[in-house]
Amino acid sequence: MYELTINLRQRDKTPLYEQIYEYIRDEIREGRIASGEKLPSTRALSRHLDVSRSTVELAYEQLLSEGYIESQPYRGYFVSQIDGLYQIRPARAEDGARSGREPEKYPYDFTPNGVDLKSFPYNTWRKLSKECLMDDRAELFRLGCPQGEPELRRAISSYLHQARGVNCTPEQIIVGAGNDYLMMLLCAVLGSRHRVALENPTYRQAYRLFANLSCDVCTVDMDEKGMRVDELEKSGADIAFVMPSHQYPLGTVMPIRRRTELLRWADRKDGRYIIEDDYDSEFRYKGKPIPALQGYDGNGKVIYIGTFSKSIAPAIRMSYLVLPPSLCEIYRKRWEFISSTVSKVDQLILQKFIEEGYYERHLNKMRALYRSRHDVLLSELKDMGGDFAISGENAGVHLLLRFQDGRSEEELIRLAVAKGVKVYGLSGYDVDGTQNTEDAVILLGYANLDENRIREAVRLLKEAWYG
Amino acid sequence: MYELTINLRQRDKTPLYEQIYEYIRDEIREGRIASGEKLPSTRALSRHLDVSRSTVELAYEQLLSEGYIESQPYRGYFVSQIDGLYQIRPARAEDGARSGREPEKYPYDFTPNGVDLKSFPYNTWRKLSKECLMDDRAELFRLGCPQGEPELRRAISSYLHQARGVNCTPEQIIVGAGNDYLMMLLCAVLGSRHRVALENPTYRQAYRLFANLSCDVCTVDMDEKGMRVDELEKSGADIAFVMPSHQYPLGTVMPIRRRTELLRWADRKDGRYIIEDDYDSEFRYKGKPIPALQGYDGNGKVIYIGTFSKSIAPAIRMSYLVLPPSLCEIYRKRWEFISSTVSKVDQLILQKFIEEGYYERHLNKMRALYRSRHDVLLSELKDMGGDFAISGENAGVHLLLRFQDGRSEEELIRLAVAKGVKVYGLSGYDVDGTQNTEDAVILLGYANLDENRIREAVRLLKEAWYG
Repeated sequence: MYELTINLRQRDKTPLYEQIYEYIRDEIREGRIASGEKLPSTRALSRHLDVSRSTVELAYEQLLSEGYIESQPYRGYFVSQIDGLYQIRPARAEDGARSGREPEKYPYDFTPNGVDLKSFPYNTWRKLSKECLMDDRAELFRLGCPQGEPELRRAISSYLHQARGVNCTPEQIIVGAGNDYLMMLLCAVLGSRHRVALENPTYRQAYRLFANLSCDVCTVDMDEKGMRVDELEKSGADIAFVMPSHQYPLGTVMPIRRRTELLRWADRKDGRYIIEDDYDSEFRYKGKPIPALQGYDGNGKVIYIGTFSKSIAPAIRMSYLVLPPSLCEIYRKRWEFISSTVSKVDQLILQKFIEEGYYERHLNKMRALYRSRHDVLLSELKDMGGDFAISGENAGVHLLLRFQDGRSEEELIRLAVAKGVKVYGLSGYDVDGTQNTEDAVILLGYANLDENRIREAVRLLKEAWYG
Repeated sequence: MYELTINLRQRDKTPLYEQIYEYIRDEIREGRIASGEKLPSTRALSRHLDVSRSTVELAYEQLLSEGYIESQPYRGYFVSQIDGLYQIRPARAEDGARSGREPEKYPYDFTPNGVDLKSFPYNTWRKLSKECLMDDRAELFRLGCPQGEPELRRAISSYLHQARGVNCTPEQIIVGAGNDYLMMLLCAVLGSRHRVALENPTYRQAYRLFANLSCDVCTVDMDEKGMRVDELEKSGADIAFVMPSHQYPLGTVMPIRRRTELLRWADRKDGRYIIEDDYDSEFRYKGKPIPALQGYDGNGKVIYIGTFSKSIAPAIRMSYLVLPPSLCEIYRKRWEFISSTVSKVDQLILQKFIEEGYYERHLNKMRALYRSRHDVLLSELKDMGGDFAISGENAGVHLLLRFQDGRSEEELIRLAVAKGVKVYGLSGYDVDGTQNTEDAVILLGYANLDENRIREAVRLLKEAWYG
């Protein structure tokens, strides 16, 4: 029998039983006690170590639970047979491989993906958040409906009907933690063996998502009305991903005729669908908002996806999918078991935010704010008198400058950056390298810059480009 | 030229330009104005309707933006050619197809998936939530790190190291909105063409997820030590999904030797991985917690997944994945572009909850609470004196009763339900119908019932089963 001499630290904060357990465990691990060897009885060891018998029993029980020793009735405890027991070696990833990567900062940044967060309704959000957590409501922390809470879905469906002309019931809506997740879920619902057509240039994130989720992805040429339906038909795709109300990044609005053609394309074959990404339709500076394509769809061919990232804040992580009835059915049968990805508290805050009229007020405020930035940027650009054409300026939070003076995008960007102004080239949205790059096209997003900073930045751009 | 006689409602809250726009749009949609037809000039129409010219201009601009009309320089406005324009037909899903489905309620429910929410730390959560939202911090609403905020990942990695013996850096952790989402992400990272082996019986949600995500799924027999590694080898699987610290639903603890064999199996071939679902290891009533398998893994073969659903609350939607370095690399290259699924506010609350010691205190409180329920249930069951063996009782929040009196699971459940007590059968976890069903095994979860209710429920069970 193995003689255990354990140096117990009486004043240590590790309990005695744990010290005994750890000692024996390490002896076994390091092969100093061979397998099959008998351990002292709990009575013998407790006398030997001068501790209570229950302390030794606890240590042995732990060793038993973890499988280091085995108990044989009437015979005692024996070391288990553990051949080549693995050494504990910490598994370490290369630290900081990328963790510290920070995006470069520029004095003026015309990012087309900006959201003005100075205007985030902090007080309201705090107030609603406090209200939601007021009582000890266990209900709020129980697992909720996989599609999102019915009350929130009701609020979204009624908002969508009024503001976007979307026709749907709350049962068709799935609330999820951001567009990326919802697109993953959608790909799962649609199943594999699809060919997805996107416009080019397009939203790079969507292209990459489809491609990585092993869909067969292709791009289809656009004209000034949006995706060309004849080309779409030729492409062999059965899913078309479009942004009819405000194409990103070109800002194109798809006219009613093209919409009709697109819907007809989808109707011609079973299993064809149109994904309508309505990412920033809230912001339009001329007339009424353009209604969503979904509202024209009589045959359940349009999958609508919208988000609160642009209209409230990117970090709240709430988006929604509106599925046509045929896909709702597949979702219910095969995917409803997937739990919701948004916490109930957050869903309740958002529901109150919409129902109590805060969302509409916030949108009005943001629309006014962005409009005045938009107006200042447009008038400053016109005063600049450069040799470029402006487009995509009726909606969203960015516009495009098309240069035809022979200078490349790269050069124009480099000149601007040298003055501390970050601008973006359209070629960054050319997802498969098929775009004509003769013209240099620069994107200017204005959501993140106030009017004075826009004036200063355009002055710097003038210096940069026209010296 | 088409004569437009529009009955304008001067006192209506719909602006005049919108009334004009809607009227003309509907005329075009319904084919009452043919394509190619010329509209009156803005001047003529404004005189005809007795409204300002800019009102008509606004209406025309909206029709132009949406593509209902076209403008020809010096000639005027013409109705676009829109063949077979779709009727707007609301796309309605069958209402209430399932929306109203409520789980049945029983006076006593021994669900094995319970979490006691009466003990949720409401005050602390409120306090932390208020603290996090205190200042107008735009940073908190900007898009965060796709993996989860570095500070939260640091807190989780240090907790995992201390409490679970998991060795990892914060760079290996991905925070996500629940296990289901993280498993979807993991399947994406692993890529297709895998054969996944699960124990049987097992966690149904995991089985279904793998199967639906078009993995090739199989089950591997268990013995009293857990998944049989010889069977695993024969199965041809390259991914093994296990719960070594507390198998669900059987409650088996995988001993060190089986763990070693499993790690060796993974080491024998490139591309083999073990997924360790450590779902409720926080609750153990005998000795110390069983350390995680991940801590024994020296070769980067274990993918660890943990959740705060069981230990805090299901609806907070926060889980985490610990990837070995090889998979971290694939994640960074191909999947890091997917935005985080958890809001930054929620991440900050959880981070403070862990760092400020609340999590540990909460776990201690819950452990004590569940332990006393566990003790009461065990002693009541022993007093019942029925002909069953109790197992899986050292950890988690449920135990199993194995009957050998010839009665079926179905019968035992029916008898209990007749007395108002809902109990669960093991066969519900038999994911592919390969289990021996000779013994009737009943699961009793006690997280949701306080001690008095447990006493009452066991009394009713005794009446139900032994009259």
